[in-house]
Amino acid sequence: MIVQKKSRSFMSPYQYISYRNLKFLLFEMLEADKNISKLNYYRDYDRSAFEMSLDTAQQISDIHLFPYYMEMDRKKAVFDNGKVTTHPQLKVIIQSLAEGGWIAAHAPQEYGGLQMPLSLMNAALVSFYAANVNTCYPFLTYAAANLILTFGSEELKEKYTPQMFSGAWQGTMALTEPQAGSSLTDITTSAEPTDEAGTYKIRGQKIFISGGEHDAVDNVVHLLLAKIKGAPAGTKGISLFVVPKLRIDDGRRTTDNGNIQTVNDNLSSIVHSQLSNNNVTCAGIYGKMGQKGYIAAHLMYGEQGDCLGYLVGEPNKGLTYMFQMMNEARIGTGLVAAGAASAGYYASLKYANERPQGRHQSSKDPLSPQVLIIEHADIKRQLLFQKAIAEGSIALLMQCSYYSDLAFAGEGEEKQNAHLLLELLTPIAKSYPSEMGILSVSAGIQILGGAGYCDDFPLEQIYRDIRVNAIYEGTTAIHGLDILGRKVSMQNGKAFELLLSEIEQTIEKAYHQEKLNTYAHQLNDAVKELTKTTQTLSFAAKQQGVEAFLSDASLYLEYFGIIVIAWMWLKQGVVAAKTIEHAENSDEKLFYESKIVTLRYFFDYELPKIAALKKQVLNFNKVTMDVDKSILV
Amino acid sequence: MIVQKKSRSFMSPYQYISYRNLKFLLFEMLEADKNISKLNYYRDYDRSAFEMSLDTAQQISDIHLFPYYMEMDRKKAVFDNGKVTTHPQLKVIIQSLAEGGWIAAHAPQEYGGLQMPLSLMNAALVSFYAANVNTCYPFLTYAAANLILTFGSEELKEKYTPQMFSGAWQGTMALTEPQAGSSLTDITTSAEPTDEAGTYKIRGQKIFISGGEHDAVDNVVHLLLAKIKGAPAGTKGISLFVVPKLRIDDGRRTTDNGNIQTVNDNLSSIVHSQLSNNNVTCAGIYGKMGQKGYIAAHLMYGEQGDCLGYLVGEPNKGLTYMFQMMNEARIGTGLVAAGAASAGYYASLKYANERPQGRHQSSKDPLSPQVLIIEHADIKRQLLFQKAIAEGSIALLMQCSYYSDLAFAGEGEEKQNAHLLLELLTPIAKSYPSEMGILSVSAGIQILGGAGYCDDFPLEQIYRDIRVNAIYEGTTAIHGLDILGRKVSMQNGKAFELLLSEIEQTIEKAYHQEKLNTYAHQLNDAVKELTKTTQTLSFAAKQQGVEAFLSDASLYLEYFGIIVIAWMWLKQGVVAAKTIEHAENSDEKLFYESKIVTLRYFFDYELPKIAALKKQVLNFNKVTMDVDKSILV
Repeated sequence: MIVQKKSRSFMSPYQYISYRNLKFLLFEMLEADKNISKLNYYRDYDRSAFEMSLDTAQQISDIHLFPYYMEMDRKKAVFDNGKVTTHPQLKVIIQSLAEGGWIAAHAPQEYGGLQMPLSLMNAALVSFYAANVNTCYPFLTYAAANLILTFGSEELKEKYTPQMFSGAWQGTMALTEPQAGSSLTDITTSAEPTDEAGTYKIRGQKIFISGGEHDAVDNVVHLLLAKIKGAPAGTKGISLFVVPKLRIDDGRRTTDNGNIQTVNDNLSSIVHSQLSNNNVTCAGIYGKMGQKGYIAAHLMYGEQGDCLGYLVGEPNKGLTYMFQMMNEARIGTGLVAAGAASAGYYASLKYANERPQGRHQSSKDPLSPQVLIIEHADIKRQLLFQKAIAEGSIALLMQCSYYSDLAFAGEGEEKQNAHLLLELLTPIAKSYPSEMGILSVSAGIQILGGAGYCDDFPLEQIYRDIRVNAIYEGTTAIHGLDILGRKVSMQNGKAFELLLSEIEQTIEKAYHQEKLNTYAHQLNDAVKELTKTTQTLSFAAKQQGVEAFLSDASLYLEYFGIIVIAWMWLKQGVVAAKTIEHAENSDEKLFYESKIVTLRYFFDYELPKIAALKKQVLNFNKVTMDVDKSILV
Repeated sequence: MIVQKKSRSFMSPYQYISYRNLKFLLFEMLEADKNISKLNYYRDYDRSAFEMSLDTAQQISDIHLFPYYMEMDRKKAVFDNGKVTTHPQLKVIIQSLAEGGWIAAHAPQEYGGLQMPLSLMNAALVSFYAANVNTCYPFLTYAAANLILTFGSEELKEKYTPQMFSGAWQGTMALTEPQAGSSLTDITTSAEPTDEAGTYKIRGQKIFISGGEHDAVDNVVHLLLAKIKGAPAGTKGISLFVVPKLRIDDGRRTTDNGNIQTVNDNLSSIVHSQLSNNNVTCAGIYGKMGQKGYIAAHLMYGEQGDCLGYLVGEPNKGLTYMFQMMNEARIGTGLVAAGAASAGYYASLKYANERPQGRHQSSKDPLSPQVLIIEHADIKRQLLFQKAIAEGSIALLMQCSYYSDLAFAGEGEEKQNAHLLLELLTPIAKSYPSEMGILSVSAGIQILGGAGYCDDFPLEQIYRDIRVNAIYEGTTAIHGLDILGRKVSMQNGKAFELLLSEIEQTIEKAYHQEKLNTYAHQLNDAVKELTKTTQTLSFAAKQQGVEAFLSDASLYLEYFGIIVIAWMWLKQGVVAAKTIEHAENSDEKLFYESKIVTLRYFFDYELPKIAALKKQVLNFNKVTMDVDKSILV
């Protein structure tokens, strides 16, 4: 492992996330260590394994990630003649994560993985992303490799995943095409069968492909959606392929001593000379407002010669397979956004604790010294807003990761229920951090004033970086359609009912705590109203048709999201209120108090926003339904 | 005038503002042409003069401004060794505006001005800013020159304003210092008297000075706040100075034929050789997230030798004088933000009308063609949001400009009332477009999806550019304190009462129009609640103290702002509903219908937000009042 410790231009000592908070969520709120280590797949993960992993994550973040965050934006990735040159640190980042076992963390031990619980892995991920968004590269590789492990043949697994887990090869998700962004139905990339079973000739273009081409890896493996010639129209005709930039030509390779081995042998030592051009051409990278180190490529497949793709699983099931990856990627996007919101919070908190400006409203004597800006109510409110969004989002993402673990490695009803809860909450876990994170970082800029708008501080970069998350992996509108049009009603509303029951358990506990009683009542009322609103909407769907029913689905998602995050705050509050009496020291006491104060902020300032949202979604005389597009002039 | 017409990389034909809408506001909503031309100062401005000026503004915008908007961001201003190099187009912009008379537009004819009404000038300005934010340079010069004209001696007027109005010299506002951002009380820049009356030696640093140093002008004239040695502490000891970068040394100059003239002669032909270094040093420019063509300088005065400043008006009245300029600058900031919101709206509207993607929820057949995204309800809603914010903001800015004209050139009670209304509305006219403009441009990005995040389209730039307006000229928090702590209660609430009466007049008219009746009732209720809330708050101020009273002033400002913009929409609706029957053609009919539809959007989607805001500001058990800063961990 190459260790490059450099001086940090911005604020040392610095903080971008609270590891104490991650431990609070894992060990105190979710008791993940106790509950998850019962599952056979995760049997090695007791509390000390959790803690050790988090400590390692912090070390990597402190040394390899955070110090380079601003620099990797300034010295952004550049495209020239088909090649993309990235910041040299990217290779260090990928390798240090690979060497720490992080890329394969969740994978089975038989494929070189650590069988790490997703709740633990995602806790580490949110810290990585908070430190440096360029950590996305290796975890995109993980997601792609995981898709091969789950649905691919043994041959594909053995050929591709070792190089991906070692960080030598990049993985991608190649979905979007120029004419098919949100509408995957309309992809036209084609796959023509060859004489060899499972091997196809791929032709088409993909755009906005994150990590699609760069110089920190030796090869790129695209998990690509295409239509096999003659396949049914629409999403039912989409298949999934592994399409490497450089292909392993004949399924055989030369070993170091010159012998020929078949592909089923261990391929983890494939070297460059055994790979040949597969005609995946990079036409350029996008000039993005943010995430300038994390490239998005425009790729052309098979324009300059045969481009071979290898079918994953069965034909025409590509979208189903891809949805597994997309759901993970959606949680991943939530983690990126929540990480950015967290980094923004700590950057503005530090500034507010160091910058004197103005005086209290009650004592304006110009001869008195200026006070720190954190003394001003408006700054405090904005900091509480940032904290409420960041930690509320992280709590939900940890809750979802916990459900993921149960859904992946649990059994019977517990497994099924966890799966349903995860399905229902994924649109919120993706969209709430993405949308509210934008506003929370904007509040962070506002706290710094002019300094927040300038590049001496990280806020402006975080603001640029975080904006894209509401677009990645389905825009917020797509998630609105998903939750209202699909998730709340699936299995006759079973997921919704399961969630109500989870929330009720928290409310029940909160009723018994004097400090939380009033919030328990508020959440109870809000949940009842949400239920009623959902029923009214479902009824209206039958009366008014699907178009009107779904017209304000984005606002329904926002409405639902606020209530779910209120639940997360109450759930944190229940633990904090119970534990605070036994706090070991004053720092610990402050940590729990801070949770209760932020809970109070959330219920006083955020929860009231549902009134307008409820009114909006229940308005059945919608202007957007009544007017033609020509009215917009 | 140098005409440089170049090809436009982005979307031709393009639109960034609706001149039709500006005419609607001026001639139909405000009847500014009729009412303002009655005032002696503006006597030359009949309807045809208004129209001709707007046509000229459109020509300048189309030719010199909009085509360079994106380019002036990409080839941003750079600092090297004390000098700032800007895009060559900046000089063309400044000169074409100067030659068109725009810099001196509002100034008296005796000083080379056009005595143009502010309502007309600001209508032109919002179009300039919508086309290209770099138009800020010359209008900052105007604001500085106007301060000299209003408070300066005849000598200062004659020495400085001709070169400023001709575009040869830049004007600035030099207020902020490293230790004094929002808190001007704490400025330390000093002014030491010299032997010459009115002339002082200036020493100190100013930061974030827009236009503070650049190569598109021959000189820079700083309108600078400093404290004369021995002056009272705080804002009562602040004086205003003219501090040129290059000074006119001895008050005399050599004419072309070699004779010496005194400074009271016409100085409009001052040339370089007659100016000498005044020791204003540029230490650097800020690396801003946006507005990369519009530089903000860090300046040092008197570090390397004598820096002379010339007192404007009387000593210790600097802040009072500066407030005139700041109030104009605040309206100006509103115009910049509203212009950006408008440009964002048209950019995403165009995209939505050209981009096919997906199908209606009710007909998902993959064999049917994709529909334009403007067909989707969620896109329509976001476009209506953008339009409601942009045009609602512009309407308020025009309303305020109209009051400015009456306050400037009116008489008696009309003048006084207009002044009070302007004072009350300025914090909203500055903050609403700035804050809501950010969200509206963000919605514009969302409409474009991934393309919105990339620099092939202007949305990402507009998003970066518009963010700063909530910081310029007092952050939103400062304006919250201004409106709640000062404006609503000034003269025993007279301004507030005048506003209520203005709003009532609109409501009365709307009651009589069937289409608007329901909105008239809604606004009436909202205004009554705002009044009651304001009274409750004022009462609480006495009970709970000023600190608690003002703690959520930003939210009170937001609450008030939504109601004022609802008024603006109702006022536009009253005119549109009345006129639509007589519309000359289908385009005109569409224009008025579009107004009524957007009004409906505003009342259905924006006005309901006041419920939460009212609850927040009326909560007298505020978390920000109860907790110490140490709780924020």
